[in-house]
Amino acid sequence: MTQGIGASAGIAIGKCFVLPNWEWDLPEQKIDVADLAREFERLYEGIRTSKVEIEQMKDELSEVVGPDERSIFDAHLAILDDPVFMNEIQGMIERQYKAAEVAVKEAIDHFVTMFDLLDDEYMKERALDIRDVGNRLLKHLLGAPEITLPSDTQPYVLVAKELSPSQLAHLNPRNVLGIATFGGSTTSHSAIMARALGIPLVVSVDDELEERVQTGDVLLLDGGSGFVELSPSAELIAAYARIKQEQEEEQARLRGLAHVDPSTPDGKRLRLSANISSLKELEIALSSGAHGVGLFRTEFLYMDRTRFPKEEEQFEVYRSVAEKLDGGPLVIRTLDIGGDKHLDYFELPEEENPFLGYRAIRISLDRKDLFRTQLRAILRASHYGDVKVMYPLISSVEEVREANRLLREAMAELEAEGKPFNRSMETGVMIELPAAVMIAELLAREVDFFSIGTNDLVQFTLAVDRMNDKISHLYEPYHPAVLRMLRTTVEAGRRQGITVGVCGEMAGDPAALPIWLGLNVDGLSMSSHSILQVKERLLRTSQEDSRSALEHVMASSTAAEAKLHLQRFKQEVDERESPEPAESGRGNG
Amino acid sequence: MTQGIGASAGIAIGKCFVLPNWEWDLPEQKIDVADLAREFERLYEGIRTSKVEIEQMKDELSEVVGPDERSIFDAHLAILDDPVFMNEIQGMIERQYKAAEVAVKEAIDHFVTMFDLLDDEYMKERALDIRDVGNRLLKHLLGAPEITLPSDTQPYVLVAKELSPSQLAHLNPRNVLGIATFGGSTTSHSAIMARALGIPLVVSVDDELEERVQTGDVLLLDGGSGFVELSPSAELIAAYARIKQEQEEEQARLRGLAHVDPSTPDGKRLRLSANISSLKELEIALSSGAHGVGLFRTEFLYMDRTRFPKEEEQFEVYRSVAEKLDGGPLVIRTLDIGGDKHLDYFELPEEENPFLGYRAIRISLDRKDLFRTQLRAILRASHYGDVKVMYPLISSVEEVREANRLLREAMAELEAEGKPFNRSMETGVMIELPAAVMIAELLAREVDFFSIGTNDLVQFTLAVDRMNDKISHLYEPYHPAVLRMLRTTVEAGRRQGITVGVCGEMAGDPAALPIWLGLNVDGLSMSSHSILQVKERLLRTSQEDSRSALEHVMASSTAAEAKLHLQRFKQEVDERESPEPAESGRGNG
Repeated sequence: MTQGIGASAGIAIGKCFVLPNWEWDLPEQKIDVADLAREFERLYEGIRTSKVEIEQMKDELSEVVGPDERSIFDAHLAILDDPVFMNEIQGMIERQYKAAEVAVKEAIDHFVTMFDLLDDEYMKERALDIRDVGNRLLKHLLGAPEITLPSDTQPYVLVAKELSPSQLAHLNPRNVLGIATFGGSTTSHSAIMARALGIPLVVSVDDELEERVQTGDVLLLDGGSGFVELSPSAELIAAYARIKQEQEEEQARLRGLAHVDPSTPDGKRLRLSANISSLKELEIALSSGAHGVGLFRTEFLYMDRTRFPKEEEQFEVYRSVAEKLDGGPLVIRTLDIGGDKHLDYFELPEEENPFLGYRAIRISLDRKDLFRTQLRAILRASHYGDVKVMYPLISSVEEVREANRLLREAMAELEAEGKPFNRSMETGVMIELPAAVMIAELLAREVDFFSIGTNDLVQFTLAVDRMNDKISHLYEPYHPAVLRMLRTTVEAGRRQGITVGVCGEMAGDPAALPIWLGLNVDGLSMSSHSILQVKERLLRTSQEDSRSALEHVMASSTAAEAKLHLQRFKQEVDERESPEPAESGRGNG
Repeated sequence: MTQGIGASAGIAIGKCFVLPNWEWDLPEQKIDVADLAREFERLYEGIRTSKVEIEQMKDELSEVVGPDERSIFDAHLAILDDPVFMNEIQGMIERQYKAAEVAVKEAIDHFVTMFDLLDDEYMKERALDIRDVGNRLLKHLLGAPEITLPSDTQPYVLVAKELSPSQLAHLNPRNVLGIATFGGSTTSHSAIMARALGIPLVVSVDDELEERVQTGDVLLLDGGSGFVELSPSAELIAAYARIKQEQEEEQARLRGLAHVDPSTPDGKRLRLSANISSLKELEIALSSGAHGVGLFRTEFLYMDRTRFPKEEEQFEVYRSVAEKLDGGPLVIRTLDIGGDKHLDYFELPEEENPFLGYRAIRISLDRKDLFRTQLRAILRASHYGDVKVMYPLISSVEEVREANRLLREAMAELEAEGKPFNRSMETGVMIELPAAVMIAELLAREVDFFSIGTNDLVQFTLAVDRMNDKISHLYEPYHPAVLRMLRTTVEAGRRQGITVGVCGEMAGDPAALPIWLGLNVDGLSMSSHSILQVKERLLRTSQEDSRSALEHVMASSTAAEAKLHLQRFKQEVDERESPEPAESGRGNG
C-alpha cells in the first residue's frame, strides 16, 4: 500500500499509463551569424503556434470547466508576451549565438531557478507555469511529437511525475479513470481542474511507487483517502468495487428525493437552495431539487471576458436565471472580487494580506460606476422573477446605507427611463465578518434578510487562512466561538423580524443540520451536489430534538466536544429508525 | 506651500542641503581576455569592501536604533552573497567581456526592472535594496568618493530624491533637523529608521519643489502634517517656532506628572504600565512614571542574533528587567513572531495571508522545544520579581490548556533540578482574536488575567489590514463591533473574577480613557511616550461620569457617532474645569 494525498474524490481501478518526463535533445553547436534572422523567425513561429494551441485548449475546455480554470491559460499566454522572459531569450540568440531551443531552455531554467529561490508559493506556481509554456515552445522548436496517450477506446489510470494544466487539458475525462502524481498539491491548478472535471486524483504519492510502476500495471486509487495500491489483490479490488458501487447506488437513491418536500418529521420546512456561478450550474441545481438560488455569484460574469460586462449583458444573464427559476427566489450577490479572486482587466493592488484587503463591497463602494451598472442590471431583472440583491463583506451600518442609497438612485434613474423593475425588491447582507455579527441587530434594521457566509466568518474569527497548509488544521467551523456567532446572528435577525439563511460551506454539511434546525434558520443555500444529502437528513431529523441537541452543542467548551454531541445525536436519530428499516433498503449506513 | 506625506513627526526649520543623485561614468570598452582574472579580482575586492562598510554601519547604528532597523543591513549583506545576482554579474564579465562596473550596473538594472515588473510591494522594496547595494559596489569599483554632507558643525534640512537606508545611516541625527524626499513612503525602511532616530521626515513631496530648491535655501517642514515651505516668510517661521516651543513646553509640563498617583478625581486607581521591547526602553518607561511593564515583547531577544537565544541568555534579560522594576509587575509575552515579524535564522513558510497564518502561540505549540526553553527562563526569572507569563494569539481553550500543561512540565523540571521559581506565577492570555472574545468566559477559567490586544482585534473583527493603504481608512478602533467586543471581554473577566487590562494602541489614546473607566478595567499598558498624556486626562476624568458617557458610546450605531460622544464628553470635562483655571497654567488646551 502506498499513501498520497487525496486531491479529488472518487475511486479508480484500472490499467495504468505512466507518462514519460519531457526530455529534450538540444543542439550543441552555436548558430552562425548569417543564420540569426532564420533563428529569430523560428522562435517567432514557435511562439505563434504555441499561442494558437493554448487558445484552442482554452476553447475546448470552456465546455467542461469554469472561468477559474480557463484563466490558467490566460496566464500562459501572458508569459509568451512577457518582455523580461522574451528579452532573455532574444539576448541569448543575438549576443551569444545560441540556437533558439537552447536559449528557450536556458531561459526557462534561469527563471524557474530564480522563482524557486524566492521561496514563495505564488512564485513557485509561476515557475511551474513558465516550465509548462516553455516546454510547449520547445516542443514546436524541436518538432517533437505530442506525447501519445493511450487510444480513446481504452480507459486508463494516469501516473505522472507532475501534471501540468495543459497536459490535463488534453485528457479526455471519459477515458481517464483517475490520476496519481508524485508531486503536486491539493491547491495546484491541476488539482482544481481535476475536481472540476470530476477525475479522482491523488497527489504527493510516495516516491517508492515510481520505481515499481509500469504502463500496463493495474492500479487502484482512492481520491478521497489518498490510498494507492499497485497490483491490488482480487479481494481488495472486490472490496473497492463494492464501495464504488455503493457510492453510485447512494447517489441514485438520493436522486429519488429531488421532488420530496424538504420538511422535518415534525413539520419544520427548511428552504434548500443552490449556490451557483453560471447558467450551466443552474441546470444541475434544478435537477437536484433546489428551491431557487440562495447565492448567485456574479464573479463569473466578470471573469469570463476582457472588460467589465455592460449593463445589458448582465441584465440578460440575470433575467435568464430568474425566468428559468419560474418564480423561485434568486439571490444575486454583487461583485465579490479581491482576496483570492482577480480579473485580468482590473488591476488590484498587491497586498500583504489580501483577505484583509480591498475586496467585495469595498471595491463596489469605491468604484461606484461599476456598482451602479450592476445594480441597474439586477433591478431590471427583478421584473422577471423573485430577484433579491445581497451585499458581500459588510462590516458597518454606513456601508449598507451607502449601498442602499445607490440602489435607490438606480431605481430613480430606471423610473425616469421608463424601464420596469420591482420597486420592493428585497435587499440583504452577507454576515461573514465578526464585525457584522456584533452589530447584527443594527444591520437588521437596514435590510430584509441575512445570509451567513460561514467560510469567511470562520477564517476571520479564528484568524486562520484555510488555504494555508501550515495552520489549516485550526480552521474549525464547529469552534464554540463560531457557534456563538451563529446564534447571535440568528437571534438578532429574529428579533428584528427579518429572514436569516446560511450560504457558506457549513450549510452543505449534513452534520451541521441540527444546529440550523435548533437555531430555527429559514433556509440553507449550498453546492448542488450537497442538497440531496442534506435533504435526506432533514427528512429524518425533528426540529424539537434538534433544539435540545443544540443546547448541548452550545454548552461545549471545545469544537471536539461540540462535534461529539452532534455525532451522538446523529446516532440516536439513526437508531430510533432502525427497528423498522428504511424503505430505501439502505443497509450499510 | 508644498504638500507631502508626514512620515516622522516634528517641526524643522533651517538651511537645506540638496543631495545630488548617484551618477556613474562607466567605461565604454570591453575588457581584454587577458584581463579577465584582474577584473574578477576587482569585483571580489569591491564586494569585500562593501561588506566591511555595511557591517560598520550596522555596528555604528546599534547604539541608536532597534533590531528591525539593523536587519535592513543583513538583507543588504545577503544580496552580496546571492548566487543568482552574482552569477549574472560573473557571466557578463566572463562571457561578454564586460568591465566589472558595467556588469554590476547592468545586473542592477536587470533585476530592478524585473522586480518592478512583478508589481509587488515587497519586490519593489527588494529592488530598492538591490539598487542601494549595487550603488555601493559601483562606488568602490569606480573609486568614486562618498557624497559629502555639510560639516558636522552646521545643522541642516536634508532634501533628496529618495533616501536609502545606508544614506540615512551615515547621517548624524544631531545635525539633521529634518528630511524631505520626493519619493519614498511612510512604510519604507528609511521612514522606519527616521522615526527610530527621531528625525522629522516628509515623503512624496510634490515634484515642483525639486525644480526650485537649492542647497542653502531655507526650508520649513512639519513631519506631522506633511507641510513643506521653501523660503518661508518671517511670520510663518515665527508661527512654527511658537508651535515647536509649545510642543516642548507641553512635554516638560507632562514630565512633572511622572510621580503623581494615577487616580481619577473620584478615586478610581488605574494601573498605567509600559509596553517595552528591550532593557533600554525600560529606562524611558521608568522615567515616564510607568507602574511596571504590562507587555514585554520578547521578540527582540530573538531578532537581535543569528540563532535562538539559550535559556541562560533569556533568563539573564528577564531577571534584569524584573529586578530593575523593584517589585513592580512584569508581564512577559511569549514569542510573538510570524505575521510581519521574522527571524533571519528561522524559516517561516511564505504565506498568502501571513496575518491569518503560522504565528505566535501557534509556532510555540508546534515548536515545543523553543517554547519550553522560554518558559523555563521566564519561570526562573519569576524568583526575582512580580513576573507573569502571557500567551499571544490564543483562539481556543485547548491552546491555553496545552500551554499551561507545558508550563507545569517546566515547573516540575526546575523543581527536580533544584532551581528556584515562583510556583504561583500568574498566567494570562492576550484577547486579540474575535474567537477569544466569544469564548472569553471559558478562557477566564483557565488563567489569572486577560490583556486585550486592540490592534489585532480591530484588524480581524473588521477584516482590515491597517498596513494596507488602500483600505486603512476602514481600520476603526471605535467601531461599534469593536466596542461590543471590549465590553464582552471585560464583563466575562469580571464574572470570573480575573484581572482585565488593555495593551493595544487604543490603551495609549487619551480619547479612549472614558471607555476604560466606564468598563472598569484594571490597567492600561502602552508606549512610554503616551503614559503621561493618558495620566493627565485620568487625573481630570471621573469614573462615574465616564460610566454614563460609556452608555451613550455603546448605544452608537456608527464609529463617527461614538467618537462624537467621546469628543463631547471631553469638552464637558474641560469646560467644568475652566471656571477656576488649572494650576498647571495650560492656556491653549
